[in-house]
Amino acid sequence: MSDKPQTSEKMQELINLAAELDDLSHINALMGWDQQVYMPRGGSEERGTQSALIGRLMHEKLTSEKVGKLLADLEAEVGDLNADTDEARAVKVFKKAYEKQTKVPWPLLMEFIKVTTGAHEAWVEARTKSDFSIFQPYLQKIVDLRIEYAKLFQPYDHIYDALLDDYEPGMKTADVKKIFDELRPQQVELLKAIAEKEPPDNSFIKTHYKTEYQELLGRYVITRFGFDWNRGRLDLTAHPFTTEFGQGDVRITTRYLDDDGGSALFSTMHEAGHAMYGQGIAAKYNRHPLSGAASLAIHESQSRLWENLVGRSKEFWSFFYPSVQMLFPEILGNVSMNDFYRGINKVEPSMIRVEADEATYNMHIMLRLEIEMGLMEGGMQVADLPEIWNSKMQEYLGITPKNDAEGVLQDVHWSGGMIGYFPTYALGNLASVQLWDKLLEENPNVHDEIAQGKFDTILGWMREHIHQYGAKYEPQELMLRATGSKITPEPYINYLKTKYGEIYDL
Amino acid sequence: MSDKPQTSEKMQELINLAAELDDLSHINALMGWDQQVYMPRGGSEERGTQSALIGRLMHEKLTSEKVGKLLADLEAEVGDLNADTDEARAVKVFKKAYEKQTKVPWPLLMEFIKVTTGAHEAWVEARTKSDFSIFQPYLQKIVDLRIEYAKLFQPYDHIYDALLDDYEPGMKTADVKKIFDELRPQQVELLKAIAEKEPPDNSFIKTHYKTEYQELLGRYVITRFGFDWNRGRLDLTAHPFTTEFGQGDVRITTRYLDDDGGSALFSTMHEAGHAMYGQGIAAKYNRHPLSGAASLAIHESQSRLWENLVGRSKEFWSFFYPSVQMLFPEILGNVSMNDFYRGINKVEPSMIRVEADEATYNMHIMLRLEIEMGLMEGGMQVADLPEIWNSKMQEYLGITPKNDAEGVLQDVHWSGGMIGYFPTYALGNLASVQLWDKLLEENPNVHDEIAQGKFDTILGWMREHIHQYGAKYEPQELMLRATGSKITPEPYINYLKTKYGEIYDL
Repeated sequence: MSDKPQTSEKMQELINLAAELDDLSHINALMGWDQQVYMPRGGSEERGTQSALIGRLMHEKLTSEKVGKLLADLEAEVGDLNADTDEARAVKVFKKAYEKQTKVPWPLLMEFIKVTTGAHEAWVEARTKSDFSIFQPYLQKIVDLRIEYAKLFQPYDHIYDALLDDYEPGMKTADVKKIFDELRPQQVELLKAIAEKEPPDNSFIKTHYKTEYQELLGRYVITRFGFDWNRGRLDLTAHPFTTEFGQGDVRITTRYLDDDGGSALFSTMHEAGHAMYGQGIAAKYNRHPLSGAASLAIHESQSRLWENLVGRSKEFWSFFYPSVQMLFPEILGNVSMNDFYRGINKVEPSMIRVEADEATYNMHIMLRLEIEMGLMEGGMQVADLPEIWNSKMQEYLGITPKNDAEGVLQDVHWSGGMIGYFPTYALGNLASVQLWDKLLEENPNVHDEIAQGKFDTILGWMREHIHQYGAKYEPQELMLRATGSKITPEPYINYLKTKYGEIYDL
Repeated sequence: MSDKPQTSEKMQELINLAAELDDLSHINALMGWDQQVYMPRGGSEERGTQSALIGRLMHEKLTSEKVGKLLADLEAEVGDLNADTDEARAVKVFKKAYEKQTKVPWPLLMEFIKVTTGAHEAWVEARTKSDFSIFQPYLQKIVDLRIEYAKLFQPYDHIYDALLDDYEPGMKTADVKKIFDELRPQQVELLKAIAEKEPPDNSFIKTHYKTEYQELLGRYVITRFGFDWNRGRLDLTAHPFTTEFGQGDVRITTRYLDDDGGSALFSTMHEAGHAMYGQGIAAKYNRHPLSGAASLAIHESQSRLWENLVGRSKEFWSFFYPSVQMLFPEILGNVSMNDFYRGINKVEPSMIRVEADEATYNMHIMLRLEIEMGLMEGGMQVADLPEIWNSKMQEYLGITPKNDAEGVLQDVHWSGGMIGYFPTYALGNLASVQLWDKLLEENPNVHDEIAQGKFDTILGWMREHIHQYGAKYEPQELMLRATGSKITPEPYINYLKTKYGEIYDL
């Protein structure tokens, strides 16, 4: 009990409210985790009602009139919401969430949840049968509802802005377009140059690796990275993900493929990157309006950094390759370190983002953004998507899906209503290299440290410049503070050119 | 949409409220399960606040004035709450929960939660150090709070009634005393007779059994019993338990001991008995005021039935023993079925209920009841408990704990404030045999069926006479309906005498 209270009564009220919302959101996250990891199928119906109940409680808590009044009082109390204090930022972030949520009529939210629930089942069936017509009416409804949602936020520069903002606070469609327009020709040119060269062999990766040793290796690598096992777990699911139930409990999942010895390892490093971000947010933001991450792109910058800039680097493998050869002598005993390194960095156009190498990855994102913008603007029709998809795949990657399951139905995002999400994947790639360059500029020995299996400089730098701030800064402001610039494509393009220039002798 | 609605608007309102309370309670159960099975230790603080939040939401929902009004309206609408309709019973059961909950001031509830949280930690430390003085002040506070709680329910026949009623609805302390008074001398006499005989050898059980095969066996046995894996799971915890998140998701846990090959198997059968009860409640009671079980004793009757009446029977082992010999030939290859059967039914006074055989088990309960009644009545003092405990152990079981960890500090119940809980363990034993006798009377072939590995008559009978009713009937009424009599000790005593008479040649 200090006689100089640091936190006003109203601010404490806001923090308490945020704490309850965090608790509810983490409870929902636990239910989602359990559903994907351990729940028997008989549990799904009631898990649905339980999760909907928590969602409704959160909505009620966030949108009550009392909250509006509290925020207005706090604005008056705090003054400039862009000021660099936790209080100002807490009010700003919470107010934004409140205003977005109160703009959306409850029936529209309910319909969206109902439609996406049905759409998920339809998408599963459509993909299994490779029949877009099963999914088409659901996707049509989703697009209609997303347009209705976006229009609630008029006036805007672009109808896609509101969707993008849900995942990437403060980012505008025009910003993304400008970045992608600069990126596309250079990336296309690089891919063309690579395509003219002899590809490295990666057949030793595309085979069965003993699962038990894959797990041993994955756990060893992320332990060295700094993943905190006292505050996290690793479990198995069909699709790897990261989730958190508080700063003290951040969990990742992976899966071991029968015909690919690299997939689980890179995916584990990726998810550990996400998880270490969650584990690294300042303790003072626990159960607080600023408890979240800055954005999905910033989150993705962390996962891609550990997966690619660290995990696919020469230095990383100079340290870990002997251990890997020990575990898998039949497969790798006669594969040199250099051949291994070139193999895991082979560039090869693929049908789906999750299988893409670093050089082709962003092409999948740009394709998706163009289609999503077309749907939202009205220039593209849902019925034409299979054709549009296939022709863009040919244009961007030089390959054509053999059916809709491999093409327009390939992933889950649209069935969940996630339009506006994809650009964050590419922005995350760009941000990862931008952060990496700054880290190297300040710590020129990092490559040597990696070669010695040391990662604390990297994690410490990310903790200091990114993780600790939680949701205090919007992504562009955070990047500006950390690197001196908003998200920009040059570092990424330079990185790709240098890396693949060497591997492919360009 | 029928034009003859079966459910009135108000009844539907009650059902919706019960559904939300069930959802919240199941959410809390999931958090508890995860905490014991998978949660990293860093998650515990926030899990505590999350769980407390759900508890508060439940309390608010249950005790709101609206609920009182709704129940009053429904009572008028439904009439006789003892009538045999679901509606009447739903109102009765819900009203009882409402009245109990509203009688307890929120600060008292909060203090109880706070004290038991601290008490648990103190108990862990006290037991580790075998030092009762560490736990004593907490236990004193718990006893004081339980007395304060019980007195809220004045007038009563006995101060212990209100505590007992929380676990065993409608059961009175006087009923339990009467049953135990009848039971005690007969059970003591039986134990005396057994003590004079040569004990069977059970050393082949008290050794290491390969964990992997123990799990294989446990899963095989309960699958044959009828445990539904589409609506359940088996995981590992330090202390086995059953929990449910809905009728479609009922989970059990077990643990494999290094020096006892029987413990996990019997515990798995026990928990499966609980779980099959949860899986067997009528679907119409899902998310409904009658969704629960009749009582803890009825629950325990199911677990003890599968563990003991089935799982420790000759017929059970005549079917399963060959499989067990196959899995563990080094240990059991030269142990005859009869020696095995006698070994797993060896009677031996033990320090703690969970390790007790069928013949000594109830003695632990009677000891505990006497102490709990003494504490509540005021005739016993917390400070004297170590001495009282030890002298009663000597009196009832002929053994004396070598320290308080083995004695008065042996289990978790009191630290959690669970006074009034223990009698249900013994009542469950009695009920299990009473149900068993009735089942055999109606199905004389059940023993033969067990010897053939068939258990559907047993599970079917329990489904029909016990499981399906959920919380519709109070335990004594349910037993009366199922067996023609309230809970009574004779069948149990006869069972013990017959079984051990044969094993010990009395």
